Amino acid sequence: MIRAEIIAIGSELLTPSRTDTNSLFITDELNKLGVDVVEKHVLGDERARLTEAVRAAIHHSEIVILTGGLGPTEDDVTREAVAAAVDRVLVLSLEQERILTLRFQQIHREMADNNRRQTFLIEGAEALPNPYGTAPGQFFKTKSGGLFLLPGPPRELKPMMHEQVVPRLRPMLPPQVIKTRVFRVAGMGESDLDALVAPVYTKYANPTTTVLSAPGDLSVTLFARSSSEAEADALLKEVGDPVAQLLGERVYSTEDAPLEVVVGNLLRQRRATVATAESCTGGLIATRLTEHAGSSDFFIASYVTYNDRQKQQLLGISKDLLEAHTAVSEPVARAMAEAAKDNTGATYALSTTGYAGPDGGDQENPVGTVFIGLASPQGTTVRRIHCGLDRARIRLFATQAAIDLLRRELLHAG
Amino acid sequence: MIRAEIIAIGSELLTPSRTDTNSLFITDELNKLGVDVVEKHVLGDERARLTEAVRAAIHHSEIVILTGGLGPTEDDVTREAVAAAVDRVLVLSLEQERILTLRFQQIHREMADNNRRQTFLIEGAEALPNPYGTAPGQFFKTKSGGLFLLPGPPRELKPMMHEQVVPRLRPMLPPQVIKTRVFRVAGMGESDLDALVAPVYTKYANPTTTVLSAPGDLSVTLFARSSSEAEADALLKEVGDPVAQLLGERVYSTEDAPLEVVVGNLLRQRRATVATAESCTGGLIATRLTEHAGSSDFFIASYVTYNDRQKQQLLGISKDLLEAHTAVSEPVARAMAEAAKDNTGATYALSTTGYAGPDGGDQENPVGTVFIGLASPQGTTVRRIHCGLDRARIRLFATQAAIDLLRRELLHAG
Repeated sequence: MIRAEIIAIGSELLTPSRTDTNSLFITDELNKLGVDVVEKHVLGDERARLTEAVRAAIHHSEIVILTGGLGPTEDDVTREAVAAAVDRVLVLSLEQERILTLRFQQIHREMADNNRRQTFLIEGAEALPNPYGTAPGQFFKTKSGGLFLLPGPPRELKPMMHEQVVPRLRPMLPPQVIKTRVFRVAGMGESDLDALVAPVYTKYANPTTTVLSAPGDLSVTLFARSSSEAEADALLKEVGDPVAQLLGERVYSTEDAPLEVVVGNLLRQRRATVATAESCTGGLIATRLTEHAGSSDFFIASYVTYNDRQKQQLLGISKDLLEAHTAVSEPVARAMAEAAKDNTGATYALSTTGYAGPDGGDQENPVGTVFIGLASPQGTTVRRIHCGLDRARIRLFATQAAIDLLRRELLHAG
Repeated sequence: MIRAEIIAIGSELLTPSRTDTNSLFITDELNKLGVDVVEKHVLGDERARLTEAVRAAIHHSEIVILTGGLGPTEDDVTREAVAAAVDRVLVLSLEQERILTLRFQQIHREMADNNRRQTFLIEGAEALPNPYGTAPGQFFKTKSGGLFLLPGPPRELKPMMHEQVVPRLRPMLPPQVIKTRVFRVAGMGESDLDALVAPVYTKYANPTTTVLSAPGDLSVTLFARSSSEAEADALLKEVGDPVAQLLGERVYSTEDAPLEVVVGNLLRQRRATVATAESCTGGLIATRLTEHAGSSDFFIASYVTYNDRQKQQLLGISKDLLEAHTAVSEPVARAMAEAAKDNTGATYALSTTGYAGPDGGDQENPVGTVFIGLASPQGTTVRRIHCGLDRARIRLFATQAAIDLLRRELLHAG
């Protein structure tokens, strides 16, 4: 089992407004090689702290990746701290000095004295070319694996990870195939999903299974490791097929596409269009349906009607209906969807009316109750759902439920 | 100088898709107390690694805050790992057992055997009540400061930080007054803002100044530390007043309120209402205006009209106008805003029409061009803006610019 630690260096990463995101990208690349990340650290520019952290990391993990602190200023202490951690000296590299001098000539700028700091390598380290910035990366083998120094800016780090780090790591690792299988799921809660499929996946250590959750939106990822592609596929099939069977139509994507993209594609295939009439979701369904390029193929129009008068005026909902049932009701959701469909000429129309809170609601329909309407060529259906108590969550949950209602209708419309 | 380390525990925080965000909130709270965060760590559920990390943190930093791993399962190793790090045992707390039993009774659920793990305290530690979940926090003093164990879910951690951690930290810290002054700014870019105000704030090490940037939305925060309230106020005045002067009307909030809240309050004060007619923003203006509770006081309705036919049908824009000028034009933005105002009876109406990309646009109006209309009792104005090239950014930027246009109109409408 080869394990990795990532150390991000930079005082700005220790403020309330910034965080280390490089490590997410690095983790993804390492996972693809079958390497787990077991610790992540963020440190500032205190050399002694960094030296200790690097020493501990080399001791605990085979692969250590450091990002940041390779700039030209006094604050850039990574080189010195790592050298101290492994009891080596820094050596001026004439080759790196030549490369950096040339680089400055090319951009017609004078090389500052500071930049010479960037031409020092840790004794015995290999320089990793960085065509995207002035700081080369560095790599050296340790007793149990290897240590990489990479620059912090993502546009320098990302290509270097691909071009320099991965090719050096691969021969250090046992040959391994990693394959994933994803199910994105709507229309059920996390605990219901877990009750349904955990009895299957928990029997297996390989593939490993992770469940991620957002309001009304779940994803199940199986992650198989094997020495051969065929075996990895077989593992994914063995666990994935029963999971797929159990989840059934609740799976909206096996390609990790967001729900609105899946529904957009279904509409596009059927040359169908959609409109919305929204109350409690306040335009969020329209916003999501238009989020991706090409949405004008299927999205045509929305109404957001936030009070009874606007429901009458814009959608033509009758005053009697509103008075008889209140705005948050099955008949009003139905009338809103039908009005949106008729007024715009869309093939389908979705509607929402509910209590997003924190005020409103009654005994029968408390805060969190949302009626979702879908008018289609086959007729109109309305679902009553309960979306929890938090306003932001209610809006997101109802939006997801509405778009999923349309997806299921489209599946059956063939 | 009191320094803090934060250790987040959870294997899910070591995947490519999740990251520790609790530490940002904790850092903010600590900074307000005058405490700097000098190291942050993320570890999984390996007890030995965690024990070593905690031992090192206590050795290096006065304040250590751990989050996560306090759940009821075998994977929740924080209690055991911390106890081992300080050579103490875990002690069953009858008080915590009583609290937890009562809690389960209240929600009419049987307490699982597992949950008893949550009633163990580290020898000598004080339990920190957690009314939001089943795991109490824990606190004990160390040789040079203190260590806190907090639950990982943000809705449990955040109130506990305020109610339990801050009051215990304050007496451990030298008396210090920290005061901030915030300017939230719309209608200019980050580099323009920096060119304008950096010459003022860079002259001072105290207050420190940070600039944060989102599409069309900037915030400048001055952060003064002093031994007295009066001196902190004087420092904020010395730097903040010239900054305020330079920024002028571009400052939309000095209370860190989001733009849509500021505009909502201005509308509410004037008993005015707003409607929108959106094309390229796809409902995002409506979504933002309805994001917060109480938005039905001022928001009444929106149209999203995503093609020419819908602009004709829903808003009554004439075919001739659309053919003469195209949909992305000053006259169409004007007509959309006026139609939204007239149809809904709103006091103000905003409109957007533009090229959100990646396709569309022409030489005169390339991708990123957006016309923003505002119909008001004083007449209609249209602004032409350029919002960059990325679809998501264009939508956010145009939304912000539209809401800001309304804000400035409301300021002058007195």
